[in-house]
Amino acid sequence: MSDFISNRQDLSALLADLPAMDKEASEAARARQDQLTKPAGSLGRLEEIAIWLAGWQSKETPRAENIKAVIFAGNHGVTRHGVSAFPADVTAQMVGNYTAGGAAINQLCETFGAKLDVIPIDLERPTGDITVEPAMSQEDMIAAFNIGAKAVSSDIDTDILVLGEMGIGNTTVAAVLSALCFKGQGADWAGPGTGLNTKAIKHKADIIDLAVERHREIATNPFDILARAGGRELAAIAGAVLAARLKCVPVLLDGFVCCAATAPLILGAPSALDHCLAGHLSAEPGHRRLLEALQMQPLLNLDMRLGEGSGAALALGIIKAAVNVHNDMATFDEAGVSTREP
Amino acid sequence: MSDFISNRQDLSALLADLPAMDKEASEAARARQDQLTKPAGSLGRLEEIAIWLAGWQSKETPRAENIKAVIFAGNHGVTRHGVSAFPADVTAQMVGNYTAGGAAINQLCETFGAKLDVIPIDLERPTGDITVEPAMSQEDMIAAFNIGAKAVSSDIDTDILVLGEMGIGNTTVAAVLSALCFKGQGADWAGPGTGLNTKAIKHKADIIDLAVERHREIATNPFDILARAGGRELAAIAGAVLAARLKCVPVLLDGFVCCAATAPLILGAPSALDHCLAGHLSAEPGHRRLLEALQMQPLLNLDMRLGEGSGAALALGIIKAAVNVHNDMATFDEAGVSTREP
Repeated sequence: MSDFISNRQDLSALLADLPAMDKEASEAARARQDQLTKPAGSLGRLEEIAIWLAGWQSKETPRAENIKAVIFAGNHGVTRHGVSAFPADVTAQMVGNYTAGGAAINQLCETFGAKLDVIPIDLERPTGDITVEPAMSQEDMIAAFNIGAKAVSSDIDTDILVLGEMGIGNTTVAAVLSALCFKGQGADWAGPGTGLNTKAIKHKADIIDLAVERHREIATNPFDILARAGGRELAAIAGAVLAARLKCVPVLLDGFVCCAATAPLILGAPSALDHCLAGHLSAEPGHRRLLEALQMQPLLNLDMRLGEGSGAALALGIIKAAVNVHNDMATFDEAGVSTREP
Repeated sequence: MSDFISNRQDLSALLADLPAMDKEASEAARARQDQLTKPAGSLGRLEEIAIWLAGWQSKETPRAENIKAVIFAGNHGVTRHGVSAFPADVTAQMVGNYTAGGAAINQLCETFGAKLDVIPIDLERPTGDITVEPAMSQEDMIAAFNIGAKAVSSDIDTDILVLGEMGIGNTTVAAVLSALCFKGQGADWAGPGTGLNTKAIKHKADIIDLAVERHREIATNPFDILARAGGRELAAIAGAVLAARLKCVPVLLDGFVCCAATAPLILGAPSALDHCLAGHLSAEPGHRRLLEALQMQPLLNLDMRLGEGSGAALALGIIKAAVNVHNDMATFDEAGVSTREP
């Protein structure tokens, strides 16, 4: 297939012309919910999820059968500053673990019948050290973005897409992206990641501040934010989100890093993430602040902070339940159940 | 089988001698979690759930295959005071709907592979009007409690039990039980239930206060609280919870009514609900207050307020995921992944 984007302008053009959800389908789904044998609104967010899926899938009765999860992996030059509790080698080792079926995400995908793709991107070429240089050249950014887009656009029949990432050091990168998109100091966005102590988090906050200072004059649009301060796996997530949007495929986002990768898209188009739900609220503290900025309400809050798509994949149980309830419950008429007192 | 309890004293005796979890199994599970290929603690509550299940099932690697959901249904004399938005006939109609497979709980059980039992208890004999008389005689209380216990103890191979209820008017009863167990006014425990407006909730609070005033002198122990102010489906839930405890079967509780049914057991033994988890936080406002009093942290918070076991059944996705991750992830050694920087 041809490239999804070839330059900065292509990304701007895509963001300027995003497809909207099918309101007729979502309204039909809402009307159906009101006929099901339960007090109106009593299934809360399960009802809203079904209506949202109906709108994006353009079906009064949405589907959650073909579920695809994709984990993108990348390495980061900023790890030279000791911002992670784990060595950078672990990125490649964990990719091997995903491929061998030994990681949490493998079991989560197995639990909910999702197909898992693992896409490492140039692990042997870490990005630039963002405290002193851009993470990626424009060419590298375009390549990573297109890898993400292609992972989605090559499938013809995905009902729901789950996105996740792996990359030692990438909560630092996510914090820099978040600060570039939504202001705030390094200390506002820094957290323990895989397990830093208080002193190390303070150091991480300083590194974040350095990187933000280095790029904020130039990184003022989605493309340059991702290229200068992002990472290959984050650029790929942004590409996947946008490719899913063009196909109207609903997306479940994972935690801090995954959401931070999508944040720049909002700067280009306020509605850019309308087809996305946040699977969970991570224990990584920056995630709460980021979801507030993105005006997203996470489905789960279970103190998880693993990444690799785990929080998004865990939310699949809720998504599947919402679809089954919506599609297969009886209506008041069908069941012969009385409605409210007059 | 012989009756589970024959009198008030039997219940006290059971509560005085509850089995504890297997600490060796839970510690073995905790040790296993620390070897799995993820930063320590990064799966948050998923880790705690697996360790908790391991303790109660007495297995380092717990199971979530044979899952049984039971809905008990009952009718309530207090409905004569107009405390519900739906007519009392709906209890029996919804039982028919469960049996026919048309309700939300049917789809939720289907989604997560749970077997559903529906047990209506004397629907043609509503309990007494608790504003002026006891809900049940001692004999009726014992019968309902034993029905609940038998629903659990007759199965030899349940890994996890999901409990729910149906009974028009029973959020009023739940509020009265909660106030008898944990003090507070009717207004503290009253909510919209299936859909009351503000004025009707105020009336409901007055009815709750009347009932509490009528029974609080005598209803000071688990048996008399359930008999005088409960309902048949609530007594059955209490019986099921206790029977599950004797078999060390872990239990997922549903919303306000289900949790209120178990609250009196706490008065008899502070550890009585250690084998139970709250599946979700209901939108019914009394539930938050009740879970705080019970010191339980719900797994989900999705603005649901349907009852019929729906919030507990929805949490099964999380439980199953926790078990699969715990049992089948690779360890650091197995996967050849490096641990933390020294």
